[in-house]
Amino acid sequence: MDDAHHHQFGKIPIPGSHVFALTDLSYAFVNLKPVVPGHVLVSPRRVVKRFAELTPQEVTDLWHLAQRVGSAVEAHFGAGSLTLAIQDGPLAGQTVPHVHVHVLPRKAGDFPKNDEVYDAIDRESEQYVKATPPAPAPGAGAGSGSGSGAVAGEKLDLDAERVVRSHDDMAAEAAALRALLQAAAA
Amino acid sequence: MDDAHHHQFGKIPIPGSHVFALTDLSYAFVNLKPVVPGHVLVSPRRVVKRFAELTPQEVTDLWHLAQRVGSAVEAHFGAGSLTLAIQDGPLAGQTVPHVHVHVLPRKAGDFPKNDEVYDAIDRESEQYVKATPPAPAPGAGAGSGSGSGAVAGEKLDLDAERVVRSHDDMAAEAAALRALLQAAAA
Repeated sequence: MDDAHHHQFGKIPIPGSHVFALTDLSYAFVNLKPVVPGHVLVSPRRVVKRFAELTPQEVTDLWHLAQRVGSAVEAHFGAGSLTLAIQDGPLAGQTVPHVHVHVLPRKAGDFPKNDEVYDAIDRESEQYVKATPPAPAPGAGAGSGSGSGAVAGEKLDLDAERVVRSHDDMAAEAAALRALLQAAAA
Repeated sequence: MDDAHHHQFGKIPIPGSHVFALTDLSYAFVNLKPVVPGHVLVSPRRVVKRFAELTPQEVTDLWHLAQRVGSAVEAHFGAGSLTLAIQDGPLAGQTVPHVHVHVLPRKAGDFPKNDEVYDAIDRESEQYVKATPPAPAPGAGAGSGSGSGAVAGEKLDLDAERVVRSHDDMAAEAAALRALLQAAAA
């Protein structure tokens, strides 16, 4: 999982060092701008826009991995609950047209209103589309995102207070989570 | 799937006539107060609080059913996207301590801010805990819900504009969805 290899997240290349779990059909990776500590994403390896397009094997693999990842990040980040969500299609807030499960460790009082976490997810997804990719990106198409993200009436209020993390910070977090998941599987 | 049989949703009995799909390990049922038309729930049949407690077979069965249900309600209610979410634990807004996938057909402009759908989900879940059960409930414990729903700082703003539906309206919707899923599987 080094940067000579990457995984496609829609049209965005995710550097290998940001991927912390890989199965036959799915992968888990850290976030450019997590909305809470430990907010990570789990996707099918195949670039597929909608959840309905996944094969039964992909559905199984995706959610088995999300379950493992959820337990790992909840413990590692000292949380007590998880939010697990798919924004399945642009009218549900999907901005990168590639199925992805948001996994968020949740703590008491992390958002003044519990639902604000989802507003933050929406903004975070926008960042992926708009931001310069966080790493020296192998291959082309970096940052081009998709044209399907703009939804009439959808809020595009970027959260200026959240800091884009460095490539190395993200790789370090991925390394820690990778070790954690390998330990859990051993 | 008549009212002589019910399924346990936490401590709440769900009448059989409100269940529209049943597999070996999971079931799908209509909502007392859907936040959008076609907002339904998919749960493991076993009363289990956290997603991490599900067996691999339960995870597979739950999400295979959620995928089928999502496609059915998206088409049936004329939507273009889906929101799929698990509030996994009280700190994530879970009010009924029984794993459930919220499946919501989404349309353009259904919520002024895309994320408000989640706030509405939170309120809807509260309704299950607070409301009188919608049907002549077989068994005891109806409406007692759980004490685990109260989270410091969490909004408990009930949406007075949403109408609790009648038992018969819910049974009629469940019958329509049941036919739809049976047709899709045939």
